[in-house]
Amino acid sequence: MKISDFFIQTFREAPAEAQVISHRLMLRSGLIYQTCNGIYTWMPLGLKVLSKIEAIIAYEQNKIGCNRILMPTIQPANFWIESGRYNDYGKEMLRIKDRHDKDLLYGPTHEEVVTDLARRFIKSYRQLPTIFYQISWKFRDEIRPRFGVMRGREFLMKDGYSFDIDQKSAINSYKKIFFSYLKTFKRIGLKPIPICAASGAIGGNLSHEFHIEAKTGESEIFYDYTYDEIDAQKGIENVAFEEIEKIYTAADEKHNSTTCKVPPTRLKSSRGIEVGHIFYFGRKYSESMNLVVAGKDGHPFFPEMGSYGIGVSRLVAAVIEANHDEYGIIWPDAVAPFKVVIITTQNNNEQADTLAERLYQKLLSANVDVLFDNRSERAGVKFSDMDLIGIPHQIIIGAESVKNGNFEWKERRSGIRSNLTFDETVSRAAGI
Amino acid sequence: MKISDFFIQTFREAPAEAQVISHRLMLRSGLIYQTCNGIYTWMPLGLKVLSKIEAIIAYEQNKIGCNRILMPTIQPANFWIESGRYNDYGKEMLRIKDRHDKDLLYGPTHEEVVTDLARRFIKSYRQLPTIFYQISWKFRDEIRPRFGVMRGREFLMKDGYSFDIDQKSAINSYKKIFFSYLKTFKRIGLKPIPICAASGAIGGNLSHEFHIEAKTGESEIFYDYTYDEIDAQKGIENVAFEEIEKIYTAADEKHNSTTCKVPPTRLKSSRGIEVGHIFYFGRKYSESMNLVVAGKDGHPFFPEMGSYGIGVSRLVAAVIEANHDEYGIIWPDAVAPFKVVIITTQNNNEQADTLAERLYQKLLSANVDVLFDNRSERAGVKFSDMDLIGIPHQIIIGAESVKNGNFEWKERRSGIRSNLTFDETVSRAAGI
Repeated sequence: MKISDFFIQTFREAPAEAQVISHRLMLRSGLIYQTCNGIYTWMPLGLKVLSKIEAIIAYEQNKIGCNRILMPTIQPANFWIESGRYNDYGKEMLRIKDRHDKDLLYGPTHEEVVTDLARRFIKSYRQLPTIFYQISWKFRDEIRPRFGVMRGREFLMKDGYSFDIDQKSAINSYKKIFFSYLKTFKRIGLKPIPICAASGAIGGNLSHEFHIEAKTGESEIFYDYTYDEIDAQKGIENVAFEEIEKIYTAADEKHNSTTCKVPPTRLKSSRGIEVGHIFYFGRKYSESMNLVVAGKDGHPFFPEMGSYGIGVSRLVAAVIEANHDEYGIIWPDAVAPFKVVIITTQNNNEQADTLAERLYQKLLSANVDVLFDNRSERAGVKFSDMDLIGIPHQIIIGAESVKNGNFEWKERRSGIRSNLTFDETVSRAAGI
Repeated sequence: MKISDFFIQTFREAPAEAQVISHRLMLRSGLIYQTCNGIYTWMPLGLKVLSKIEAIIAYEQNKIGCNRILMPTIQPANFWIESGRYNDYGKEMLRIKDRHDKDLLYGPTHEEVVTDLARRFIKSYRQLPTIFYQISWKFRDEIRPRFGVMRGREFLMKDGYSFDIDQKSAINSYKKIFFSYLKTFKRIGLKPIPICAASGAIGGNLSHEFHIEAKTGESEIFYDYTYDEIDAQKGIENVAFEEIEKIYTAADEKHNSTTCKVPPTRLKSSRGIEVGHIFYFGRKYSESMNLVVAGKDGHPFFPEMGSYGIGVSRLVAAVIEANHDEYGIIWPDAVAPFKVVIITTQNNNEQADTLAERLYQKLLSANVDVLFDNRSERAGVKFSDMDLIGIPHQIIIGAESVKNGNFEWKERRSGIRSNLTFDETVSRAAGI
């Protein structure tokens, strides 16, 4: 993509109310802006990152046989009256009356809607186990939205729901999702830490949160260094669930430093951003909403359910919190809006332009996800813009390039620069 | 995809309130169901079709250099007060108060939000022309939602907005979108008819509707047969805008049979489903919302704007209205949930199963978008299900196949059957 055909607008300053680094960098690099309090518009560059994260999540969900659906954003209140949560949910639920004075709401989560779906579509044990998921916009009317898309009001969430014939099968579904989530976060370029959690307002009796470490995380988390050691050795996603369960992990509210059995020298404490949360909650919704399925023996039963969430828009901020420096964002390759950028430093130089165009066309034909910064701005402006928006690999076409046909390749993360020939440049870019 | 790993549930009957054929077929084939009045959930099969249509639209938009963004579903009322439309819009607008008693609304369209976007991001004439678009869920609180997703309350729409320095440039953007829309609808497998339109509530002075012919269309449309002749000869998308403008087309409210200059024998009258609508409306929003841009001469000016919509979820219904028979849906290849289905008719036959599995694996490795109906249902049930859900190409593995290794290939639309060898089957499927 040539930058002349792609809408990019960066800003020198972020508004003072943007406190955390990811929020400041997202505003400065023009990924998003606030349309109204806690509600954001995604600009082309930001939407590309969001879509790449969405695609990775969908890929891993599909791989384990989850069925993608799409439930509406607007829900009828009566489902929540049936489940008994309508009055419990409080002011975070955006309640709406339609023109006929019917009570609706903007879904903060979809347990009720998906249970209603199941009562229409699932009639027999032979249709189980089944896991449905969607990636869609939710609304929670936070009293004080803050940190940009980290705690916005309208947010993109992947939410999944499992239906099983019994507890054993339900826990099997739970574990499938558990490992799928570990792989998802790793594929994005993050290190996930699953933490045993008391279940929140959603109810249930088995639950894990998935955290990403970052200085600005809202929760304090504690875990045994063994986790890092095993992860480094085998990859945590390749270890049995029962082994992972033995490793101590806890969030603030469950950790007690006097009773904790992990010796202080083995205990890591850091701050975490919660990016996923999974629950097994049994028959809470199937019973209250009368989801009845015919069993193998002909007798009807209430399926066992679980729900599984990932904060998709929040992940964009979490990735930045975990991947930036003083100059801006450093995208992991997997979610970068573009993997490679070509920067020309010689304006009004026909030879440089020809060389850049030739390289650009060659990279396009090699299917490289490349941005070509062909603006007639000063080199310094281009460098700082490209560092800010965080394209991970930069190919710089300078005065030397015109003479010898070579390029400077700069790694955004390490700052390491190499001199490469045309062919070396193409093969390196194609190999990313 | 094996049907055992994919959630499909068909129904023998559609509820009596489903009047039009597309609505009946969408419910019977389990593409969607109604979560509450005029609000639908998309099941896996339906969502696949919706996503394919969305991808085609995005592809054609990107090809002409439109920038994809994503604006929020919830908007602040104050933008609409600025533009002067807040009181005009009436009860179709879903109005909401948040916990702080602020007036919000669920966006029925996004002229105001995108004009606000432009005032933040577009400062100079050098950033123009620019066209932004999004594909996102809208809400219109229809008094009587009907015909399923054809006139639902929550619906998926592609909406685009152009910004130009002057009228000439704005009309150029308008024409670019006009042809992009013709190509989009053709790529989906439909025949679009652009109709000159008086502009509606949205305001403006140049406007076209795009209609698809179907018996159940809500509007009566009239056009000169010349349109069909030129389309057949050259493809209407390859004809100059000025030439197309000369061909008479009109919807009911603009057509007058006594004054119409087209001779009755050359005038075609049919019913149309409106699937797209484009407007050029000048400075209506830039002036009312004070979108000011610095011109080449240094003087500030109000950009010229246009807006461009496609009803994405409605298109699913429109495609079915234009492509079905007494047995069910007949998807055009481009938007079929799967292009090919393998149907085994021999249950408990190990040889048939092995042959089917071998063919399935071969098609997967040839990147064929294939569904494998491996259920142990009677052949008749499978045939009627696959006819109903409308997979365009069926490969049938019967008793003969076990003997001679050949397959029956059935075209869903024409009913034409051929006997093909294993290799012929693979190469025909790969060529679709």
